[in-house]
Amino acid sequence: MGILLKDIMAILPEGNEDIIRKTSIYIEGNEIISIGREPEGFSADKVIDGKDRLAIPGFINCHTHSYMSFMRNVADDLSFMDWLFGTIDPIEQKMTDEDAYWGACLAIIEMMKSGTTCFSDMQMNIHQTTRAVKESGMRAVISRGLVGSGDDEGGQMRLRQAYEERDAAKDCDRLTFMLGPHAPYTCDDAYMRIVSEEAKKNNMRIHVHLSESVSEIEQIKEKYGCTPIEMADRNGLFDVPAIAAHCVQITESDMDILKRKNVSVVTNPASNMKLGNGFAPVPAMMEKGINICLGTDGAASNNSLNMFHELNLLTLIHKGVNKTPQCISAKEGFKIATINGARALGLEKETGTLEEGKKADIAILNLNNPSLMPTNNLIAGLSYSANGSEVETVIIDGKVTMENRKILTMDEELIYKKVNEIITRLK
Amino acid sequence: MGILLKDIMAILPEGNEDIIRKTSIYIEGNEIISIGREPEGFSADKVIDGKDRLAIPGFINCHTHSYMSFMRNVADDLSFMDWLFGTIDPIEQKMTDEDAYWGACLAIIEMMKSGTTCFSDMQMNIHQTTRAVKESGMRAVISRGLVGSGDDEGGQMRLRQAYEERDAAKDCDRLTFMLGPHAPYTCDDAYMRIVSEEAKKNNMRIHVHLSESVSEIEQIKEKYGCTPIEMADRNGLFDVPAIAAHCVQITESDMDILKRKNVSVVTNPASNMKLGNGFAPVPAMMEKGINICLGTDGAASNNSLNMFHELNLLTLIHKGVNKTPQCISAKEGFKIATINGARALGLEKETGTLEEGKKADIAILNLNNPSLMPTNNLIAGLSYSANGSEVETVIIDGKVTMENRKILTMDEELIYKKVNEIITRLK
Repeated sequence: MGILLKDIMAILPEGNEDIIRKTSIYIEGNEIISIGREPEGFSADKVIDGKDRLAIPGFINCHTHSYMSFMRNVADDLSFMDWLFGTIDPIEQKMTDEDAYWGACLAIIEMMKSGTTCFSDMQMNIHQTTRAVKESGMRAVISRGLVGSGDDEGGQMRLRQAYEERDAAKDCDRLTFMLGPHAPYTCDDAYMRIVSEEAKKNNMRIHVHLSESVSEIEQIKEKYGCTPIEMADRNGLFDVPAIAAHCVQITESDMDILKRKNVSVVTNPASNMKLGNGFAPVPAMMEKGINICLGTDGAASNNSLNMFHELNLLTLIHKGVNKTPQCISAKEGFKIATINGARALGLEKETGTLEEGKKADIAILNLNNPSLMPTNNLIAGLSYSANGSEVETVIIDGKVTMENRKILTMDEELIYKKVNEIITRLK
Repeated sequence: MGILLKDIMAILPEGNEDIIRKTSIYIEGNEIISIGREPEGFSADKVIDGKDRLAIPGFINCHTHSYMSFMRNVADDLSFMDWLFGTIDPIEQKMTDEDAYWGACLAIIEMMKSGTTCFSDMQMNIHQTTRAVKESGMRAVISRGLVGSGDDEGGQMRLRQAYEERDAAKDCDRLTFMLGPHAPYTCDDAYMRIVSEEAKKNNMRIHVHLSESVSEIEQIKEKYGCTPIEMADRNGLFDVPAIAAHCVQITESDMDILKRKNVSVVTNPASNMKLGNGFAPVPAMMEKGINICLGTDGAASNNSLNMFHELNLLTLIHKGVNKTPQCISAKEGFKIATINGARALGLEKETGTLEEGKKADIAILNLNNPSLMPTNNLIAGLSYSANGSEVETVIIDGKVTMENRKILTMDEELIYKKVNEIITRLK
């Protein structure tokens, strides 16, 4: 099927810069086959008129827990302990695989409606996010959360589940898999080593939480005499390509490790503020040359999976913290929300920019919205004035999954009904 | 005309708490005449079905410069000096009254579409915001920005304009007026005294910028040997009810003055971060008992006039700054965005809550949006997960001004065309 985005403003990479230019984008199968020149013999089954529209590469949400979205707005303004042990944990203890599936469906709807075309998920109920991803047309990178100790059968079982989930999804090109050792406070040295050896052996990437809270730092210092990042490093987690979520409480030498080992850092500004963890030193990490990407974290601690929201926070808060209005520009934020994320997930040849030969993962914004009027610098608009509801059409892997804000691949009404039933039952 | 909001979830004040309850709201003329019981002889010309809907008091944006909205996304990620003198000031020098009118129209559309029903504006082109307010059905409090020195004819002229503007709008109950001495760095001691005397004499309130940037503090210290807040106080600005925008760089004793003089502080989190000014000590001011309200500032420094965006920032950033997840709860944020604003503007008997006898200033949200699903704590939802696009219908002063997201009182398409022409001409 051919899709033509005709005479549309688009954000395109030009060397290291992203520029905005009016062009036409030709899609065939799941690929962008041409930008600007009509390919010979191209025939469009669908033409999208680009008048007053902006095409951007879909955002890449590099760290979330999609199943959690039915816990949106259930536990707010609480101490971390009351939040986790008073509300979230008791709900998670009771939830079923089916609940996780509907949570993932809701998360995917929210992400699509705000222009996200790929996400990286850490979860505990195998086959559920993957099922929602397959049905919805989303692109995702899945990590089965791994917790355990070296001599613990549970830890081995979770590893087997990770492979089982990966193997069961071989038919879907939109799904890839990482190993997800949860965090240094839930995996001991021996288990971390087992996981990193498995990752090497199976050519898989690592997705881990690191240095989120002050109490984590204290706990790891006491138990292992080092920082969480040092603990992860000495157990080989960074010997394969890795993404580390959070990295809020980190030292200069932690940053040097992350840079030396080419670890990508997923920053989660909303979640870090909401849980009282503070602000990650993102500008300092950028200065070191660390690949920074962006994530929303789960809906229990954000409570939004809208990447426009996250990008806005990213490009505002560090200006406030560093009292520097030039800190993390809209152009830098745009890369962080798109191509840097693709790089972190090993998908930079597939997605993250609008380029010939890449998969067609595209969000189309309607500029006839007050938030983007008048039409000045639209890259600034993505960071500072848009709220995500301007996204009108979404194409993922060459397929239109949302049109005129209607999700074509999922039953929104049914999903809303289900998640309401679930939270009523679990609360 | 009678309007009935039938069987609708609503956020209602109950003592000091705001609670969410399903009810029916009866509107006649410009007033909420009953909540919960059908008044005798009530007849509805219009019934709004409350199924899956939430009624909230419209947000009150206590500090903006509406004309600036055509400068959205024109000058970002620049030093304050490059921002102001390189871009904003040159555009302002060239803009006409008519430009200011279209800017105000765009601002009003954006605010209505994100649930704001009243705003407090400081501007330089008299009769323009008022014209847009009259036509649109908005509620507003207008301050002609006053700059000058004691012996300066310009300062006198601006004061006369403030009265001229007020007098010309006597026919519109939705408009009230304040005097707007711009800031201690643009008004000298003598002019501040003239303005405060005029305010007392004419029973008007004061709207002023105070203590926004570090350079302002240094400048005022050098010129007057005191803080901007002390300078305002000693010149009598706080002897009438006053609102002070920003208050970022303030001392403990500044806070004591603000509290003692019952000054309301308008916090503008996005603008303060974006221009590199940092974070106002809002939790400390709340601790002192100062009335805190919320503003977006103008679109040249935010770049959004969406109060959902601002409320989200308010309730997130101070948790990050103070490393306390309980800091500024969603419930506190809701009051700050509504009734505290009404109080600051002297409109607490008219608006700011859904109560019998108040004007019908209501935003109705469609809950069938992923950001508000499942339906858990909806007050938390306003702060942490909604983005403003959930607002479906807006009623101001008893009149439906937006329905199914269509503005009924203004020509959106024409306004978009005009603001694009304006910025193209002025850039």
